[in-house]
Amino acid sequence: MCPHALIPYKIVNPKTRLSCMLNQEEREAFARAMLEDVIFAVKDANCSPVVVSTELFDSEDIQITISDADLNQTLNSLLPQSVGAIMIIMADLPLANAQAIKRVISTTSDVAIVPGRGGGSNVIFIKEPQRFHVDYYDTSFLKHKKIAEDAGLSCEVIDSFRLHTDIDEKEDLVELLIHGTGRSRAYLEDLGFVLSVEKGRVGVKRREKNSVVV
Amino acid sequence: MCPHALIPYKIVNPKTRLSCMLNQEEREAFARAMLEDVIFAVKDANCSPVVVSTELFDSEDIQITISDADLNQTLNSLLPQSVGAIMIIMADLPLANAQAIKRVISTTSDVAIVPGRGGGSNVIFIKEPQRFHVDYYDTSFLKHKKIAEDAGLSCEVIDSFRLHTDIDEKEDLVELLIHGTGRSRAYLEDLGFVLSVEKGRVGVKRREKNSVVV
Repeated sequence: MCPHALIPYKIVNPKTRLSCMLNQEEREAFARAMLEDVIFAVKDANCSPVVVSTELFDSEDIQITISDADLNQTLNSLLPQSVGAIMIIMADLPLANAQAIKRVISTTSDVAIVPGRGGGSNVIFIKEPQRFHVDYYDTSFLKHKKIAEDAGLSCEVIDSFRLHTDIDEKEDLVELLIHGTGRSRAYLEDLGFVLSVEKGRVGVKRREKNSVVV
Repeated sequence: MCPHALIPYKIVNPKTRLSCMLNQEEREAFARAMLEDVIFAVKDANCSPVVVSTELFDSEDIQITISDADLNQTLNSLLPQSVGAIMIIMADLPLANAQAIKRVISTTSDVAIVPGRGGGSNVIFIKEPQRFHVDYYDTSFLKHKKIAEDAGLSCEVIDSFRLHTDIDEKEDLVELLIHGTGRSRAYLEDLGFVLSVEKGRVGVKRREKNSVVV
């Protein structure tokens, strides 16, 4: 089995909630590094990545370029055209690895969902995409479980913190610096990001350029 | 196999970071409800819960009462006495279920760790406790991996968001209201807690008592 993995990806001015730590150029490079990490994991799990974006970008991977930036509308126009099972996986999951993705696609249910922190749907795997539609934003995890139920499709919730951890805010960078192994972690470290512990709580800080580490 | 599961538990004034939403009495009842959820999951996975606390409390479960509140010192005095494998599981993991715990104790490695959010060690399973010691606080996950390595013990990191999600802050309550199925979720709902969506972000709010829900 070699399901296609649709990866929605925002090229311009992504991850605005990280603006406190990264300027726009850095956020764009960081988002690209996270995408590369996701693509690596997807391929490592023997799936075929298909990047879905509003703009073309330099890459050897398959891209679908869309005019409509509405995520739900876009994906819901693609699902009925699919031949075979489809996975939809977000581009901001740099802790993704093949082992976690294989747990998703080896589900015995009709649909498998990995919830994101805060009620999102970080990964959805659908064996018969014609019978499903997506409804992202807000508590989409609960909505997608309901959509599966209403369509008479069995649904498994996959228990993975690696796929649960989407990188949106400063606090999320802690997880990447602890558990990441790919390009996006390396990019953060190149920028000078390190773990810091203050009052018993673990955070991140960015060292100033040219500062000397003793 | 029926390993003992040590569950450190703070009875008086726990979970102070939830003080913005819960008074002390409520926090104590909430912590107790979370403990009950963890004990349920531990038993459901055929493990034997042993609550480790500085004070006795009303319960049918086995308790070890200790005079010293220092978590590391306490656990490190217990580990060498253990006959057989030991699990240490935190009391604030109300999303724990038998399936996740079974993945931990069925490891083929000498040690298995489930990292908590922010570098903690939410669950540690040790086949030969005499060869290991704990060092909680700060980025204990990294410290525990190093302790295993230094002792020549193989270590598996278990990928579970249910055991990764410790409940410390207001934002964590979102996870409990979405994914919880036990007493602590019911307790929160009894207090009037509901999910709320503001500006596309999912949070929680507490309804005022006697307010009428239309």
